[in-house]
Amino acid sequence: MLVRPATLEDRDALWRIIEPVLRAGETYALPRDWGKAEALEHWMAPAHEVFVAELDGAVVGTYFIQANQRGGGAHVANCAYMTDARATGRGVARAMCAHSLDHARSRDFAAMQFNFVVATNERAVRLWQSFGFAIIGRMPAVFRHPTHGFVDALVMHRTL
Amino acid sequence: MLVRPATLEDRDALWRIIEPVLRAGETYALPRDWGKAEALEHWMAPAHEVFVAELDGAVVGTYFIQANQRGGGAHVANCAYMTDARATGRGVARAMCAHSLDHARSRDFAAMQFNFVVATNERAVRLWQSFGFAIIGRMPAVFRHPTHGFVDALVMHRTL
Repeated sequence: MLVRPATLEDRDALWRIIEPVLRAGETYALPRDWGKAEALEHWMAPAHEVFVAELDGAVVGTYFIQANQRGGGAHVANCAYMTDARATGRGVARAMCAHSLDHARSRDFAAMQFNFVVATNERAVRLWQSFGFAIIGRMPAVFRHPTHGFVDALVMHRTL
Repeated sequence: MLVRPATLEDRDALWRIIEPVLRAGETYALPRDWGKAEALEHWMAPAHEVFVAELDGAVVGTYFIQANQRGGGAHVANCAYMTDARATGRGVARAMCAHSLDHARSRDFAAMQFNFVVATNERAVRLWQSFGFAIIGRMPAVFRHPTHGFVDALVMHRTL
């Protein structure tokens, strides 16, 4: 597994990963009907440092890291991760999370926080917990899941 | 007290309120050195519906309301409020919070959430609690306060 900075040439590969996640609407509070341009404008926003994970030469995952807040909150990092559904179970998310923690330390962030982990995304919750993230907030019914209805979302945090 | 939609003609009055709050750096995770253009671009962003509070014909407070998330999270409102320091203690924040709750209901939001209430801002915490907001998350040391150092911030939430 190679995790490297994304380039503009990764745009098609990124969209192949992002589109099904958006369309499913199960894990991210983003518009399900976004097109490629809107999705990539969000994912590759100027404030985001974007990485991709490669397995056997194919891009199978992506994440971005940014400061979670500005001003007095800029010492805390925030990340978002997406894995190609066809590569599930091969450690892609784990490799990206490990990479993001190392990278956040290298940028002198003091902590990392996820602001909106959909509680039904149990695989992700367990993975973040295995990396030392604690649930420090539970927001009731703040996410409308396409099959489960209104579900909670979690704030997760760890120091670096 | 009159609370009404802000117009472009309120820009100078808004900046008179926002600038000291930014410079103090005690309550908002925003750059302390922002100029008028950057601050108003943020406060009056297209996604924000902005209001002002008037007392004796003078603008003494402002707030904006927006959807806190997109997609599956768009049923929860988010607001930010600022009061002119010279009008403190005259019920400006209370009037704006009451207005914002009514307005959120009129827009069919199901809940309201504040994502980053600096814990040392006790006056605000007590005010939101008096309006029925509960502390549903406590983020440790995520805000660097200019005099208190690293302090916690709170997630506060109530249904509508």
